[in-house]
Amino acid sequence: MSQPETEDTRTEHDGLGQLEVPADAYWGIHTLRAVRNFPFSGHGLHPAFIRAFAQVKLACARANTRLGFMDQELGQAVMDACEELAQGEHADQIVVDPFQGGAGTSTNMNFNEVIAGRAAELLGGDRGDRELVHPIRDVNMHQSTNDVYPTALKVAVLGLLDKLERAISRLQESLQKRESDMRDVVKVARTELIDAVPMTLDMTFSAFADAIARDRWRIFKCRERIKRVNLGGTAIGTGLGAPRDYVLAVAGHLAAITGLPVSRAENLVEATQNMDVFVEVSGMLKALATNLMKMASDLRLLSSGPDTGLAEINLPPLQCGSSIMAGKINPVMPEAVTQAAIRVMANDQAITMAASMGQLELNHLLPLIAHAMPESLDLLTASCLGLSEHCIQGVTANRERCLEHVEQSKALATVLVPALGYDHVEALVAEARESGRSVRQQAIHMGVASQEAVERLLSPRQLCKLGFTPGEFEELNKP
Amino acid sequence: MSQPETEDTRTEHDGLGQLEVPADAYWGIHTLRAVRNFPFSGHGLHPAFIRAFAQVKLACARANTRLGFMDQELGQAVMDACEELAQGEHADQIVVDPFQGGAGTSTNMNFNEVIAGRAAELLGGDRGDRELVHPIRDVNMHQSTNDVYPTALKVAVLGLLDKLERAISRLQESLQKRESDMRDVVKVARTELIDAVPMTLDMTFSAFADAIARDRWRIFKCRERIKRVNLGGTAIGTGLGAPRDYVLAVAGHLAAITGLPVSRAENLVEATQNMDVFVEVSGMLKALATNLMKMASDLRLLSSGPDTGLAEINLPPLQCGSSIMAGKINPVMPEAVTQAAIRVMANDQAITMAASMGQLELNHLLPLIAHAMPESLDLLTASCLGLSEHCIQGVTANRERCLEHVEQSKALATVLVPALGYDHVEALVAEARESGRSVRQQAIHMGVASQEAVERLLSPRQLCKLGFTPGEFEELNKP
Amino acid sequence: MSQPETEDTRTEHDGLGQLEVPADAYWGIHTLRAVRNFPFSGHGLHPAFIRAFAQVKLACARANTRLGFMDQELGQAVMDACEELAQGEHADQIVVDPFQGGAGTSTNMNFNEVIAGRAAELLGGDRGDRELVHPIRDVNMHQSTNDVYPTALKVAVLGLLDKLERAISRLQESLQKRESDMRDVVKVARTELIDAVPMTLDMTFSAFADAIARDRWRIFKCRERIKRVNLGGTAIGTGLGAPRDYVLAVAGHLAAITGLPVSRAENLVEATQNMDVFVEVSGMLKALATNLMKMASDLRLLSSGPDTGLAEINLPPLQCGSSIMAGKINPVMPEAVTQAAIRVMANDQAITMAASMGQLELNHLLPLIAHAMPESLDLLTASCLGLSEHCIQGVTANRERCLEHVEQSKALATVLVPALGYDHVEALVAEARESGRSVRQQAIHMGVASQEAVERLLSPRQLCKLGFTPGEFEELNKP
Amino acid sequence: MSQPETEDTRTEHDGLGQLEVPADAYWGIHTLRAVRNFPFSGHGLHPAFIRAFAQVKLACARANTRLGFMDQELGQAVMDACEELAQGEHADQIVVDPFQGGAGTSTNMNFNEVIAGRAAELLGGDRGDRELVHPIRDVNMHQSTNDVYPTALKVAVLGLLDKLERAISRLQESLQKRESDMRDVVKVARTELIDAVPMTLDMTFSAFADAIARDRWRIFKCRERIKRVNLGGTAIGTGLGAPRDYVLAVAGHLAAITGLPVSRAENLVEATQNMDVFVEVSGMLKALATNLMKMASDLRLLSSGPDTGLAEINLPPLQCGSSIMAGKINPVMPEAVTQAAIRVMANDQAITMAASMGQLELNHLLPLIAHAMPESLDLLTASCLGLSEHCIQGVTANRERCLEHVEQSKALATVLVPALGYDHVEALVAEARESGRSVRQQAIHMGVASQEAVERLLSPRQLCKLGFTPGEFEELNKP
Repeated sequence: MSQPETEDTRTEHDGLGQLEVPADAYWGIHTLRAVRNFPFSGHGLHPAFIRAFAQVKLACARANTRLGFMDQELGQAVMDACEELAQGEHADQIVVDPFQGGAGTSTNMNFNEVIAGRAAELLGGDRGDRELVHPIRDVNMHQSTNDVYPTALKVAVLGLLDKLERAISRLQESLQKRESDMRDVVKVARTELIDAVPMTLDMTFSAFADAIARDRWRIFKCRERIKRVNLGGTAIGTGLGAPRDYVLAVAGHLAAITGLPVSRAENLVEATQNMDVFVEVSGMLKALATNLMKMASDLRLLSSGPDTGLAEINLPPLQCGSSIMAGKINPVMPEAVTQAAIRVMANDQAITMAASMGQLELNHLLPLIAHAMPESLDLLTASCLGLSEHCIQGVTANRERCLEHVEQSKALATVLVPALGYDHVEALVAEARESGRSVRQQAIHMGVASQEAVERLLSPRQLCKLGFTPGEFEELNKP
Repeated sequence: MSQPETEDTRTEHDGLGQLEVPADAYWGIHTLRAVRNFPFSGHGLHPAFIRAFAQVKLACARANTRLGFMDQELGQAVMDACEELAQGEHADQIVVDPFQGGAGTSTNMNFNEVIAGRAAELLGGDRGDRELVHPIRDVNMHQSTNDVYPTALKVAVLGLLDKLERAISRLQESLQKRESDMRDVVKVARTELIDAVPMTLDMTFSAFADAIARDRWRIFKCRERIKRVNLGGTAIGTGLGAPRDYVLAVAGHLAAITGLPVSRAENLVEATQNMDVFVEVSGMLKALATNLMKMASDLRLLSSGPDTGLAEINLPPLQCGSSIMAGKINPVMPEAVTQAAIRVMANDQAITMAASMGQLELNHLLPLIAHAMPESLDLLTASCLGLSEHCIQGVTANRERCLEHVEQSKALATVLVPALGYDHVEALVAEARESGRSVRQQAIHMGVASQEAVERLLSPRQLCKLGFTPGEFEELNKP
Repeated sequence: MSQPETEDTRTEHDGLGQLEVPADAYWGIHTLRAVRNFPFSGHGLHPAFIRAFAQVKLACARANTRLGFMDQELGQAVMDACEELAQGEHADQIVVDPFQGGAGTSTNMNFNEVIAGRAAELLGGDRGDRELVHPIRDVNMHQSTNDVYPTALKVAVLGLLDKLERAISRLQESLQKRESDMRDVVKVARTELIDAVPMTLDMTFSAFADAIARDRWRIFKCRERIKRVNLGGTAIGTGLGAPRDYVLAVAGHLAAITGLPVSRAENLVEATQNMDVFVEVSGMLKALATNLMKMASDLRLLSSGPDTGLAEINLPPLQCGSSIMAGKINPVMPEAVTQAAIRVMANDQAITMAASMGQLELNHLLPLIAHAMPESLDLLTASCLGLSEHCIQGVTANRERCLEHVEQSKALATVLVPALGYDHVEALVAEARESGRSVRQQAIHMGVASQEAVERLLSPRQLCKLGFTPGEFEELNKP
Repeated sequence: MSQPETEDTRTEHDGLGQLEVPADAYWGIHTLRAVRNFPFSGHGLHPAFIRAFAQVKLACARANTRLGFMDQELGQAVMDACEELAQGEHADQIVVDPFQGGAGTSTNMNFNEVIAGRAAELLGGDRGDRELVHPIRDVNMHQSTNDVYPTALKVAVLGLLDKLERAISRLQESLQKRESDMRDVVKVARTELIDAVPMTLDMTFSAFADAIARDRWRIFKCRERIKRVNLGGTAIGTGLGAPRDYVLAVAGHLAAITGLPVSRAENLVEATQNMDVFVEVSGMLKALATNLMKMASDLRLLSSGPDTGLAEINLPPLQCGSSIMAGKINPVMPEAVTQAAIRVMANDQAITMAASMGQLELNHLLPLIAHAMPESLDLLTASCLGLSEHCIQGVTANRERCLEHVEQSKALATVLVPALGYDHVEALVAEARESGRSVRQQAIHMGVASQEAVERLLSPRQLCKLGFTPGEFEELNKP
């Protein structure tokens, strides 16, 4: 919480007593108690969550005003205040720590108080005039933390999923560009880091791209479930305390305001107490993290060196790599992405634990989910964009090195297995290793293949073909 | 590995030398080396994985035989041996520890050797006659561990997902029966374990049932991706060493043999190196585990007591609960389910780490995934069936206790908020608490409600209604 | 990164080219590149880490100056700049995101540039005059990110462990006070949430206190290993590029500056590449989190109600609990602590993954550890203080309720087992349950115990005694 | 559960009714119910846990017999039966699944029934004669699952920790041998997989050995806490139902029987409900897993190739590596170890979750801990022994390759920074890279160093030295 710049205060009271609140604060006594109770992480609320929360409050006020439960002028002031918050104004007034008890009550009260204060001002009153606009009676009308808070989280997540999907899409395109660049680069494939068989470099990027395409599809699909909200269900999903008309209307207003396909869950009691949809979404995010981590690891392995590593590709230099080793350039983007991916996996564990520990009609650990989920989404979006724009787009092949590796390795030998048989090829490899000859040289030495035959067998075209066809080994002489 | 019952041995050799193998073993030198190298866990391979592996081997032999790559008589013997293994015979011959290096090579070689040995026998030869039927040349023809092993795992997982889906379905039905039983049981809802508002007991089971229905849908959908296999791709997905006709045909044979909708992945290189689909499926299993854990926790809370807990429901007694406390019955099924759920979550972490640490053209940690995934599926299937048959089906409501709680609590007060306003209800509750009156009595005492009005407000019908409607508080007198 | 307030810039260059840097920034081109490369989390560096980093830089400058490697006047300016940063000044100049590649190079360069800029100013020059004070040549003299960064992290962790230990100690004292308050409150013990045997309420708090005492001891001990630093080892621990005298002296300066018992690790190469000590410390933090979560859960269970839960203890009200349910007070502190504990467990997973994925001579994922570790320490410190000051200190026993529970339950029956035998007690309990009698009444009814005998058996003194002694059941009549 | 080989049965009854039990089973009705209730994992109980459980039962029987609570002849029969189980006999009678509700009650009853059955036989009766020896009245005398089960687990863990410590010790010795072999092998160090500075190969193994030495110390120390047992505390730690003399004596008997330093916990109530000591031990196991995974990864990186990877060391071949790629040898031991390490980390998560979810006077999830903890210990013991005997002992250096790498890389340049300054070295490296010269050649070309000077700077002796000393760069000419 930012320090009050003035010592002027006003007195506010609640069910537990009264406190002095800075006179210039929009927030009030409930917020102040929460700030004092929870000096836990020092983190702030995610901007997308603030925006979504204000939009939910706006939807409620609009429903209440349209249905006549709230006075028109008052309603307009409340809605205007919500709009301002949704636009990013008054962000410094949302001061409660994301780590909080009460299943989000303190955050909801923080919003209620700030909106009430600002609405009072808009009506020409004082920001502390709680009678003019009351945080609970007016701003929180027909609401409970238990429906408002998870709904806001879902709205925020939906928005961040959109951003993520666009970032994944960018990464996919960058990967596909590299795929089309590298069709003719023959290289050695490695399984278990051991030289295996020949391949072409475009296959590497094609595999990345197709994995990422799967992630894009997953992210797209997982919005299905998260769009069902329990808004209108109030405390436990029965809508207790809210008029039926309001319950039926409010989700529609939210959809209109956010432009998102949110709709009322069929079973509001169920939607209020079960948080498995966040586990589902986080699980999909974790699958993306898995692919990003694998890709980052491969990029680092393939670009390792420059002199004593694999060095088959070059990553674009982003920054000087060492404060002591002159000229060293590190694969910093894949390294950052790996850490982001680990964090997403750890967040998934936190989200899973929190979701699984709900009790009876509510999950009291939702604020932890509300903190971890946007963090995961941000990290993945930054990872996809960072990889795409600052890494993949600048990747080049080290063609000579790739070819050199093909020459040096015994990987080529496997191409000959269908023609010569496993045991003979095993012997050929052993002899090549002993004699220092390359497989190509050994094959020619042993009279099984001509120079041309070997070159044809190693051409990118041949290597990209799926399986061999009868006759293609005819030029080879079985030993 | 079971001890050889005889000291008779035969000599086998491989690229590293020779070893003595028990004469009566179908397996051979590759298996023996693996058994010696990996005395890690002492666990066996999952029966569904053994069956699936044999089916994959069968599919390959069938493709090779039909296409004429393998001699008809030899092919038939190999296929017959595969069938036997698929039927559960020779299970004691699959002796390699699931924790193994080599990305599954040792398990593949174990199958190759056992099938070769058995096929040789079926052809009238000796089980150790590797020339008659060769484990690699014949049984492993046109295959690599890297396509056979993950394909077998996917087949196993698909089968276990079927079983799981049926178990989920059973649990859902049991929950729905309880839902229909308990429509008229009024009780107190609790948020954050604090008395909140009234509800009816069927809502509890309805929420369970609907969460489980979502899981059923998820499990159904997640089969989509796991059905794409890389069979035919051999070492890295290029199909190197396998004839094109075989590559195109083999997945079809597998589909026919297993009756499962498996098909060849479009990008075989990609499908060989990326394991995110297992992370995706495991993530869905984890969502189910989340719901099961929450349900188990609720069942335990609601049945706690019998005298000094909530005791609103009774779980069927399954076994005597204590070796020291006479007459104690514990909620053992929810407790077992909770542990299964935790294990599934831990397995998900293992699967995620293993999948994310793949390198270049292969994931060398796949055997860990192959061990953890069937374990998770088994535990969840047992949990759903156990909960359904041994718990939910016997759950009864403790109606008197539920009503007693409604009477004792101040939860009822929230019903009055729309009519009386938050502040007045807060005062009513405070006074009731001080005077020892129930909310009902206090309301009557303060003249806001008649006995009849209160009863109507608390009727199951009224409580199940979503939101209030104008006029329903008319009987109340605002103070 | 805060937006530059002015459009005035200066030109800086590095190995990759040149960039325009805001004229009023102390930081320079390396920082700017890093800020652009890593817009990942938006989080800042932990203040304790900033302080520790400045202290490490100070120690290096002091060693260099004292040994004559750095000019006296220049050295003094650098040290003064370090002091300012260590005091919390210029914190807004540390702008690089904690999620970064390069194993902390960007953070180190951020410090190098800011210190150089400020030192140049102190020498009367311009903050951008890199020739006057050079970020690498001067500020980073004889250092590598690879020794400076992990050393700073260890210094920060040591300081935060001190704070945590004091917080644990406070919590322990608060628990011990409650223990001494509640010696005479007889209550029902529950195993598996089922009524078990009688106990006294002080045992509950005694168990909390003794678990926490064990944590205190663990935290105290785990500082042992974290105090060995690799400062002086430069890039990989061989001290390459640093003079031997400096290597031998610099850790001593750091100890003097920080007042902490840091010392040079014996094997600097080892200390540079292995991060298991952070896993060890995080593991101990996780054990504390485990105890806190269990305690928080118990506090919530025991205070559940107020009317329809266990309600055996009362937590002090911290804030109004609901925006809709009048008068509801929630156990917000235990709820916040549970979330903090889950986050600590998730951080432990992140730290473990990062530590286990080090490669060869360095762990490139250290920045993630450096982000997660202080967060865990903060959350635990806040949890211990919050529980101690805002929860445990205000906990009171609900004595009547506790006694009522003892009367209602069959738990008492177990006391009689040694005298009457398991089978007879089982029958007594069954009959009591059927007849609606309490165990006490049933025992009297069946003639096995007098009122006095039962009361003696249930006295706090009797219940706190470990085991029974011969003769104490003499008054009972075996049936 | 193995199928009864006979259809002969006997009737047993318990508090819930009666069941038919196979006549030839030592176990009885409680076991049968548990087997039917928990068909969860199909795993068996760990042999070390079976042995420890039998020893605990033996200690209880001995205490009861010596103190006269149990008849001498009966006591002897019970003790003899316990001895037989501890020796590994009747292992097929321990049939309850490790995943079970009831906090271990079913396992305890399984032991009670088997011991009773066998003791009855030893007394000349029938194994089903429960009156002769009663599973609860006699075998379970003065015990509760809640003290017996966790005590047995601690005994088992202590024994397995001993085995692990010996395995770690073996690994440490193997590493130290390699360290002493490889003192004179100059190679390139890599940070972030990028060529960094020169080093010698012994440093690699020295770093492994010293990390492992730290693990050995940790494992040694973590036995401290696990040795405190709650035996004698019965249901919740108050010793209810047990005579004081027995409570004071029984842990001593256990110490004598097991030869382990177990002793009674001071606060038995605390020791019964808190499981953080298992989290602590598992945390230490996880630190070992971290070091093993890092070592395994390094071994795989350094031995990658053989032709197109780093190939600086050779791992001993353990088995043929491919069923398709002739002559391929994979690093199977490090791969298996990595999977074991991941499983240990996942087990740690499971143990942590289970320990943190204890409630009130008991942790109902202990059976999960009892399953995961021995598995982790086994996997780590196998990993240490496997790495030691089948990998490290056969590792050789590829000296020529190491030297070749030193020649090829620019790593050498950093050695020159103290003499020439960062900027000049950066330029030298750039020029070398452009011209294709090695750093050595470039330095000579630029006239800064003689052949001799460069060789001296690169000698193992020089590289192992910590930091430089004045004068050692005198031969160099600053440009």
